[in-house]
Amino acid sequence: MTPHAAAIDYARTHRKGAVEGLKRFVSFPSISAHPNRRADIRQCASWLVEHLTSIGMRRSRLIETGGSPIVSAEWRGAPNQPTLLIYGHYDVQPVDPLDEWQSDPFAPVVRDGYMYGRGASDDKGQLWTHVAALEAWLRSTGSMPLNVRCLFEGEEEIGSRHLMQFLKSRPREARADFAVISDMTMPSAGRPALTYALRGSLAFEITVEGPSRDLHAGMFGGVAPDPSRALAEIISGLFREDGRIAVGGVYDDVRVIEPRDRRWMASTPGTSDTEILRETGVTAVPGELGYTLYERQTSRPALTVNGITAGYQGVGAKSVIASRATAKLSMRLVSCQDPGRVQAAVKAHVMRYAPREFRVNVRFGASALPVEIDRGEPIQQAAMRALRRGFDESPSFIRSGGTVPIVNVLRNELGLPTVLMGFGLRTDNMHAPNERFLLSHLSRGTESAIWFLAEAARLKTTNFARVGGRPKVGTTCAILR
Amino acid sequence: MTPHAAAIDYARTHRKGAVEGLKRFVSFPSISAHPNRRADIRQCASWLVEHLTSIGMRRSRLIETGGSPIVSAEWRGAPNQPTLLIYGHYDVQPVDPLDEWQSDPFAPVVRDGYMYGRGASDDKGQLWTHVAALEAWLRSTGSMPLNVRCLFEGEEEIGSRHLMQFLKSRPREARADFAVISDMTMPSAGRPALTYALRGSLAFEITVEGPSRDLHAGMFGGVAPDPSRALAEIISGLFREDGRIAVGGVYDDVRVIEPRDRRWMASTPGTSDTEILRETGVTAVPGELGYTLYERQTSRPALTVNGITAGYQGVGAKSVIASRATAKLSMRLVSCQDPGRVQAAVKAHVMRYAPREFRVNVRFGASALPVEIDRGEPIQQAAMRALRRGFDESPSFIRSGGTVPIVNVLRNELGLPTVLMGFGLRTDNMHAPNERFLLSHLSRGTESAIWFLAEAARLKTTNFARVGGRPKVGTTCAILR
Repeated sequence: MTPHAAAIDYARTHRKGAVEGLKRFVSFPSISAHPNRRADIRQCASWLVEHLTSIGMRRSRLIETGGSPIVSAEWRGAPNQPTLLIYGHYDVQPVDPLDEWQSDPFAPVVRDGYMYGRGASDDKGQLWTHVAALEAWLRSTGSMPLNVRCLFEGEEEIGSRHLMQFLKSRPREARADFAVISDMTMPSAGRPALTYALRGSLAFEITVEGPSRDLHAGMFGGVAPDPSRALAEIISGLFREDGRIAVGGVYDDVRVIEPRDRRWMASTPGTSDTEILRETGVTAVPGELGYTLYERQTSRPALTVNGITAGYQGVGAKSVIASRATAKLSMRLVSCQDPGRVQAAVKAHVMRYAPREFRVNVRFGASALPVEIDRGEPIQQAAMRALRRGFDESPSFIRSGGTVPIVNVLRNELGLPTVLMGFGLRTDNMHAPNERFLLSHLSRGTESAIWFLAEAARLKTTNFARVGGRPKVGTTCAILR
Repeated sequence: MTPHAAAIDYARTHRKGAVEGLKRFVSFPSISAHPNRRADIRQCASWLVEHLTSIGMRRSRLIETGGSPIVSAEWRGAPNQPTLLIYGHYDVQPVDPLDEWQSDPFAPVVRDGYMYGRGASDDKGQLWTHVAALEAWLRSTGSMPLNVRCLFEGEEEIGSRHLMQFLKSRPREARADFAVISDMTMPSAGRPALTYALRGSLAFEITVEGPSRDLHAGMFGGVAPDPSRALAEIISGLFREDGRIAVGGVYDDVRVIEPRDRRWMASTPGTSDTEILRETGVTAVPGELGYTLYERQTSRPALTVNGITAGYQGVGAKSVIASRATAKLSMRLVSCQDPGRVQAAVKAHVMRYAPREFRVNVRFGASALPVEIDRGEPIQQAAMRALRRGFDESPSFIRSGGTVPIVNVLRNELGLPTVLMGFGLRTDNMHAPNERFLLSHLSRGTESAIWFLAEAARLKTTNFARVGGRPKVGTTCAILR
């Protein structure tokens, strides 16, 4: 039996153990957005460290940061072989609205072939495919065909600030030849794909303050400025009737989709308007004219309102003019938009239209550049071969509308060719109630990850990512312009 | 010593007891909007029943309804004298945002001459002036100069539905010659006033539903319809840039303010633009042109956004497109608007502008007609004399922007001339954190209520309000048209 056959064999006979391990992993309420979950974050990270040690990884440890600890581990038993960096995140999104969950988000259950729980798909389940692959190699053969570094962070859902600082200040800790991230989706169940483009993002919060205190809406209605109303008007003013974003300058740097890209996108499986429409759960999706839904989803900027908080939200009515109202929004960016320029444009737009009787503030949160990857990179082709074997299906290259901020650092700062090998589905309810992960993707993903180690091992060390030298692996706009 | 002098004397020597009694009254968290407060509502009502018995009122009891019980009591020891109905409400508004309270809303404290606590002013403190007046009369003289009925309800803040049903089905229980309500404000501290106009109201909630589940804003931004954005646009579309309400037909029935009313209003103390502006806590209050702030506040329709709930509201960011978003709004109505017609206009407007890719629903809550009272009614003049004695100041007639739905039933259905004798201040933070009640108004109000019993007793029984005959006491539009 060849080593990789032994590893595959191990994975197949230990599927149940992988499911149980993932259940345990998902059961930690490691919500990074909630400061009161710091102990849960740490418990989750410590558990992961111990698990990595138990499967045979070395130097498995917590790296302290100003926030959630980074989980690091390595295996360097293949001295003349390249090194693969595996990135993942063990933190999860908040769970509210909790009452819409059909089962406890942190008591994972299997129903109809899916594991349900917060983080099941984003990103614990996807990260777990790689951990299961490492276990399969190490337990079945005592070795691996190449060197491996794991870096699993606990702040992806809040912007990866500390991991980025860590990578910038201690680049040797991420020294590798290439990286793999599984925190994306596939076109549909059983149809594997590599992601070759991500949108960037810019989060911001608009606060409108008016009266110095909440006022009785009867006594002051018609007189006192109403921050809730003003906020609604400001949000409304961010959009044009034709479906575009009204903020001046936002489209200035947006790369026109070239005919050859358009053709490529049109031939991508699972991305027809019909298929995307079905996933949204609505019958019509008016928006920017002249683009397919897949183009709007992955290659055009988008502005979404992620939350509005204003006034009385309890049962029944309360006749009040609230003194303040806030909205959380986020913009998705595409090549060649720059988050800094977009930020300035948003600020200027809101301030210009803010009624003078209010104190209006725009506070910006995490931002990330969009990503475009050259599909011809050797490591991408190696990953395609691995996916074909893992899923017994021809993989495709797809674009994602989502954002993984760390990809920019890995590629642009550390010069690592990075593989975006997603095992999730857009219908996995990531960031929503009833998040789930298809268990057949856990096993197929694990086998793909096992094959990926073998395929990547055949590549020469690239000499990428040597500290000091930063080879171009394609910055956001270099490839397609 | 005359009887009323004895009553005044009693009130002055028992001020501390009145404050302690009100503290106990305010300490009940009798929030009618919260179904889980039903036990607190009932405890509060039972306590009030016992207190009324203890001061010498008769047949003090709970009247069961489908909701909060009504507290009823009477004293009929003056057979040839008129009967006064005292109305008040023992329920209070919700307390959120709780973290903005400087002290526990249900652990009332006295600071700087004010009692702080939810309901201190609206309406427990104001109701208490009458209870203290009854106590003063009954304890000092063993009698009262006229007959008294108390009807204190526990659902004013949610629309008074059950009290209205009760009054319509059992009008004999409210048989009286006139009524008094203290649930209003005075122009400023120490300046007494009777309210001769109230605005009506219409509460409604707009719900926008889009995707069948919450969606990841990265993966679906630019494709999926965003209910939070649509809600903001619908709210925004309810208003015109010139400060008026955009809903077609809303102004059709609005009575033009006549020059004599305008002159009367202009001479009302405490109602200058400067004074009203100061109360709102902002420096500018743009709105409908051609009206003073007092006119806008009391004689023009107003639409306010009382609450918006959409998407993620926790700390940090969550990149989500929520599947639904809701807003609570309320319209204030003036003579001669009809809530039913306005409701139809609002519904038609929202539905016409609702984007077709969403399911949009408008649900209407409580409504009330506006009120206009003839300042020449004998009972109003009696109340003016009582206020002058109670406050040692000339009282004025003022308009309120607020709504007291029960006034319509008392006046239009039962034919009771009704006195609106407010002791609150617009700066009492009614419906807001840190609600308070000026203790000097508690004592002055109590003395005014004592004098009011004496002044009202001098009027002949009006034969108003005999069951079956409904004399006109001025319907909403009859007087001033």
